[in-house]
Amino acid sequence: MSTFEQYLQSQAAERDAAGLTRRVVAGVGHQAIDLAGNDYLGLRRDPAVIDAAVAALEYFGSGAGASRLVTGTWPIHEDLETALAEHLQMESALVFSTGYQANLAAMTALADDDTLIVSDAHNHASIIDGARLSRAAVEVVPHGDLAAYERALQERTQARAVIVVESIYSVFGDTSPVAELADLAARYDALLVVDEAHGLGVVGDHGEGRVASLGLAGAPHIVVTVSLAKALSSQGGAVLGSDLVRSHLINTARPFIYDTGLAPVSAGGALGALDVLIERPSLAKEVREIMGELAAACGVPTPAGAVLSVAMPGPREALAAVDVCAAHGVRIGCFRPPSTPDGSSRLRLTAHAGLSAKDVEHCARVLRTVSR
Amino acid sequence: MSTFEQYLQSQAAERDAAGLTRRVVAGVGHQAIDLAGNDYLGLRRDPAVIDAAVAALEYFGSGAGASRLVTGTWPIHEDLETALAEHLQMESALVFSTGYQANLAAMTALADDDTLIVSDAHNHASIIDGARLSRAAVEVVPHGDLAAYERALQERTQARAVIVVESIYSVFGDTSPVAELADLAARYDALLVVDEAHGLGVVGDHGEGRVASLGLAGAPHIVVTVSLAKALSSQGGAVLGSDLVRSHLINTARPFIYDTGLAPVSAGGALGALDVLIERPSLAKEVREIMGELAAACGVPTPAGAVLSVAMPGPREALAAVDVCAAHGVRIGCFRPPSTPDGSSRLRLTAHAGLSAKDVEHCARVLRTVSR
Repeated sequence: MSTFEQYLQSQAAERDAAGLTRRVVAGVGHQAIDLAGNDYLGLRRDPAVIDAAVAALEYFGSGAGASRLVTGTWPIHEDLETALAEHLQMESALVFSTGYQANLAAMTALADDDTLIVSDAHNHASIIDGARLSRAAVEVVPHGDLAAYERALQERTQARAVIVVESIYSVFGDTSPVAELADLAARYDALLVVDEAHGLGVVGDHGEGRVASLGLAGAPHIVVTVSLAKALSSQGGAVLGSDLVRSHLINTARPFIYDTGLAPVSAGGALGALDVLIERPSLAKEVREIMGELAAACGVPTPAGAVLSVAMPGPREALAAVDVCAAHGVRIGCFRPPSTPDGSSRLRLTAHAGLSAKDVEHCARVLRTVSR
Repeated sequence: MSTFEQYLQSQAAERDAAGLTRRVVAGVGHQAIDLAGNDYLGLRRDPAVIDAAVAALEYFGSGAGASRLVTGTWPIHEDLETALAEHLQMESALVFSTGYQANLAAMTALADDDTLIVSDAHNHASIIDGARLSRAAVEVVPHGDLAAYERALQERTQARAVIVVESIYSVFGDTSPVAELADLAARYDALLVVDEAHGLGVVGDHGEGRVASLGLAGAPHIVVTVSLAKALSSQGGAVLGSDLVRSHLINTARPFIYDTGLAPVSAGGALGALDVLIERPSLAKEVREIMGELAAACGVPTPAGAVLSVAMPGPREALAAVDVCAAHGVRIGCFRPPSTPDGSSRLRLTAHAGLSAKDVEHCARVLRTVSR
């Protein structure tokens, strides 16, 4: 047996022994309620979204066929970019084939070896990987610690600085102090990159996200990244900023340049979902209200977005709660050490617009049982 | 103006002054012939592919809704994985949302700080980025230089080694010595990772790719990566290897774990295209024959795949040739320094099954004019 096979086998044995082996998990059909996924507006099966996707598929073909810089840019990409920029109140947008690559692109194109990246300790894997690829100096600051952000900016020796946060964090569902960070960035001549993966579609009167709802969108020192695979129920991502930022990404972001363009059908689906949201802005309020009911059932404060984290006494209790919920037709997630930043065990659940009052009541009843 | 804006403006001015500004390029409609994209089997608009994609969209919804490890794995993902593994004669497959991320995942999960990565100088950006993210020692060897590969393996001080190549290189369209490298890998207890992005669907009697057509598929020291966005005309990628490799990726590959699953519609489209190829294996031969006619028209030897590179005297001649082709309704690409690994100026063109004899003849006539 090769050294490599031995290595893979010993790694697998270690994972198994620690009870940490991950497995793929099937999607939730009509037999259960999904409080684990990220389809916050419940649009994955919306007829208008499916129709928009089918139209794009039949008109433009199945895949983009090439990199956006070769022959892979279709009008639907540019329509989506225009609509995203408008809805998020930013000057322009550039669409990527995944949210992961949008973050890799933002970090690698906007930071270099003469840049300091000030990165929150709870940031997503794609931000961390992007920061590492950028060759910038990276200072990871304690989660949400404004003084630590400011200290890092004050002490920097690099020509440029980039602060990077999520507007709503994916693990705990809490928010970052975006307004204060925008102010810090302005005072210290830095750029602020905000990942709105969990803010878009959920936060703000029109689901425009936290940056826009705080009146910060369009400021020249703010860049926003989004996922098209959560509230917009499709696939892909985007980076939003000034025209100059967009053209800089087109010219320097390897995950854009050397990648086939987003499938037109996914651009069409995302645009269809955005159109639904524009027509029915109350969807954003609806998901927050459902989140409020679920949070109340768990006896915890209502979060700003559609992600709720509930602390549990230990990993065993967390797993048991997930099983009880599943037995009652409610799918929730949980985090156990070492997957949580602070070593705690937590339930993680998400809210979705479009759940009936009866379904929400059922979920609340089950959650009351397992979280008390 | 902030330091950051000044930086972006000066970078843009430098690019403009050097004539190197990149712009997005529109897809080719019915008014022209696309000899630039990667839809090698011409299946982007195939009715069977569109039908398969629409069926997946209507049955599973627009996006996967979550990470594959949360609730984002749908039966179509596993059907596609089974079909890919069978067609490429590998034990198992894991599907990713882009080919870029499949390569990032393969490199980061299969190499660590006690691994030497021996990487060909012409490898794709996604392989280079993955190697950098892996924390492994990376030795870039001269393009195709077998003695240099062997020297690197001989002199390694790390516990493990990974050789990584493309089966057909995307820039020059030439091949790597896969059989010899498989032998080297076996002799030096190393793993060989082969990116079949441009081999799948094109090489072999059934379009099974170079690794399988050389009888090397399924060997425990060989891992294959593919794109679903080229011959399979969709979006996404996959890593193929042993069951152990698949489970290792599920457990350790961040671009898999922390990413929304591939949109079911793109999995369905790729599976539909694979089914067309299985039913009509002659498509692989057809694209190679068309490539042969185009290569003959350019006065250069026929490459093994569907990518042709034609050396030009200089950047001006290359650009002029692209313009003449465009004026005759034929879209081709070109590479100019500094985009080519060897500083040369080259036309790059691709062949596609499904072009009519009349279209191929027209393309050949135009190419004869510009390349002589």
